[in-house]
Amino acid sequence: MTRNDARALDATDPLAGCRALFDLPDGVIYLDGNSLGALPSAVTTAMADVTRRQWGDRLIRSWNEGWIDAPARLGAMIAPLIGAAPDEVIVGDTTSAHLFKLIVAALRANPDRHTIVSESGNFPTDLHIAQGAVGCVPGARLRAVARADLADAIDDDTALVLLTHVHYKTADRFDMPDWTARAHAAGAIILWDLSHSVGAVPIDLTAANADMAVGCTYKYLNGGPGAPAFVHVARRHQAMLVNPVSGWMGHAAPFKFEDDYRPADGMKRWLVGTPPILQMAALEAALAVWAGIDQSVVATKSAQLFDRLAEVGDALGLECVSPRDPARRGSHISFRHPHAYEITQALIARGVIGDFRDPDIIRLGLTPLYLSHEDVWRAGDILTDVMTSGAWQDARFAERLAVT
Amino acid sequence: MTRNDARALDATDPLAGCRALFDLPDGVIYLDGNSLGALPSAVTTAMADVTRRQWGDRLIRSWNEGWIDAPARLGAMIAPLIGAAPDEVIVGDTTSAHLFKLIVAALRANPDRHTIVSESGNFPTDLHIAQGAVGCVPGARLRAVARADLADAIDDDTALVLLTHVHYKTADRFDMPDWTARAHAAGAIILWDLSHSVGAVPIDLTAANADMAVGCTYKYLNGGPGAPAFVHVARRHQAMLVNPVSGWMGHAAPFKFEDDYRPADGMKRWLVGTPPILQMAALEAALAVWAGIDQSVVATKSAQLFDRLAEVGDALGLECVSPRDPARRGSHISFRHPHAYEITQALIARGVIGDFRDPDIIRLGLTPLYLSHEDVWRAGDILTDVMTSGAWQDARFAERLAVT
Repeated sequence: MTRNDARALDATDPLAGCRALFDLPDGVIYLDGNSLGALPSAVTTAMADVTRRQWGDRLIRSWNEGWIDAPARLGAMIAPLIGAAPDEVIVGDTTSAHLFKLIVAALRANPDRHTIVSESGNFPTDLHIAQGAVGCVPGARLRAVARADLADAIDDDTALVLLTHVHYKTADRFDMPDWTARAHAAGAIILWDLSHSVGAVPIDLTAANADMAVGCTYKYLNGGPGAPAFVHVARRHQAMLVNPVSGWMGHAAPFKFEDDYRPADGMKRWLVGTPPILQMAALEAALAVWAGIDQSVVATKSAQLFDRLAEVGDALGLECVSPRDPARRGSHISFRHPHAYEITQALIARGVIGDFRDPDIIRLGLTPLYLSHEDVWRAGDILTDVMTSGAWQDARFAERLAVT
Repeated sequence: MTRNDARALDATDPLAGCRALFDLPDGVIYLDGNSLGALPSAVTTAMADVTRRQWGDRLIRSWNEGWIDAPARLGAMIAPLIGAAPDEVIVGDTTSAHLFKLIVAALRANPDRHTIVSESGNFPTDLHIAQGAVGCVPGARLRAVARADLADAIDDDTALVLLTHVHYKTADRFDMPDWTARAHAAGAIILWDLSHSVGAVPIDLTAANADMAVGCTYKYLNGGPGAPAFVHVARRHQAMLVNPVSGWMGHAAPFKFEDDYRPADGMKRWLVGTPPILQMAALEAALAVWAGIDQSVVATKSAQLFDRLAEVGDALGLECVSPRDPARRGSHISFRHPHAYEITQALIARGVIGDFRDPDIIRLGLTPLYLSHEDVWRAGDILTDVMTSGAWQDARFAERLAVT
């Protein structure tokens, strides 16, 4: 692919206009939107409004002027991105906290079974939280196995299958309908972590007959650092599953100030404490960007961006650990290299911001809303130069940062 | 007290200069800072910086430029306000979530005892969360009794005493050293909820030999709607207590991406998911206001503001349910009245914003940093007018709002 080929693709890109909805710094090609999405321009205005007008001027009255409904309102905005009904999604807390609540609830709802099956090498917090959650349900245990062994591990003691839809390192994507059906065939339910797939690939929880899901909003949804996560429970399960972290915001009547906990109906029972309104204002502005965007168009462009970098990797002899088939992956590309850390730092020094994943992965995120084909073409050119010049061998690129 | 008396107090008020550090709307006397603190002026600038520069321009790099340390940095800023060491406090999640984590951890650390003792009528989330937490520890139970029965309820099966330092309705304040000593004498530990006392009254957890505490930062600390809460664990307990909500941010090495959870040393183990960085930026600016402020000066002014409203209440024959002794209360005054809801709405319509607490409490918060003596004098005058004119009997004041 030549630079002119890339420009030709940009000329007919149906998403080309979305770039103007984001504020990105000059001199940077941002390939880390899978870790922290870029700033949607509308967020700056939204933050000023929530701070000065809603908090500063309206003060406590704002709880009755939109704040109290923010968790459900944002959930309804996320629902179409994951193929769920508006009343099956709510926003609040972190992905980790949601995982804890759902896992404990699911184990309790099926006391004849005791095992959670998940994948070793899953995103750490999924496994860490599952380890904590089983400690809250007598007899429960976590069984984490390699992907190749998952099918055999799901058996008649499996209460819950816990899978991350798109793998944070490799971008490997599970076939959601297929694995949901496998869990159901074994009499288990399934919890999908959509953190690396929501906003990256088309998702249809309803079509897959999925049971529960969680997901991060600060990656492809661009909700900002520490944006609150979403939680999904299929309507058929909502009355049976009870939140073990029984905070007042999940109460049926939080402002009745009753001593005894009574879970709210529907998704509100998954709330715990006071929702983070400033973060929610940022997220709401970020979600508005998605209105009218066709997820299949996003996926098509993602595949084109991937192909450019895969071609560069092949020419450099880099080991690509991401699937070549776009239907089997998310929206990032990962290369394995023993000096992945130094190469990532050298790319950042040249303005190509990707990230390193311990111990040997260079991870480059592909976000079709704000990356042009020419951006990614240039990133490939810079990667080629960093590798062929040996620039990454400079000692300064080996200095470890706290967050890598 | 006359208006001139109030003005005379303002003329010599050592906190008079603090008012300029807040943005408050014209025409409002804000007596609800105990529910949602007013907007510190510095927050607006801080929000623009964290949004545009830190997120928009620096993007993912900001994690290494201050974000990852925000929970501990903010904890260290709160520590002097509660008489704790900087490494005994960390910020993140909600008060409810922190309560859950600490309660489960404390019950597990003392498996020979099974009971949590708390107060009936405690803030609901404290009781609700305790009800959920005991479900995670076999044999554990919650015993909530009236305040008068608390001393007798603490016995040799008590693992944990869970008390809210200042009561959200009445403003009754527990004697922290005394109740901490009672818990210890019975072989239990104590968890203090400081939500209605931090920033309102002097607190010295170390002098009281307290074990654990949590607290809200959007009330007297002015951190903004949904600001993250703090958690405190005395250093002597830190290694023994393990967070059941074992998320990756509480891991000893979160960026090593290990399958097995290993809790971090110190307070970091209480973190769960990615911290809410936008909320933290607001909170950090709000906490900066407290630098150099003497808590005893705040308490003295609070007592003077209280006396003015107590005097008005007495003249109106209103039942004051808050203690008259300032050493036995927080920084709000509550009146009981069968038409508390309507009276509160009538006050709001006249620009005096307090709140109603179900079923019959008018609650007026006294925040010495941004309320003048004359403000509170005028609030008393308006309360007198609303009551003596019968203005609160207008039907429009009986219309219930979602959040009251």
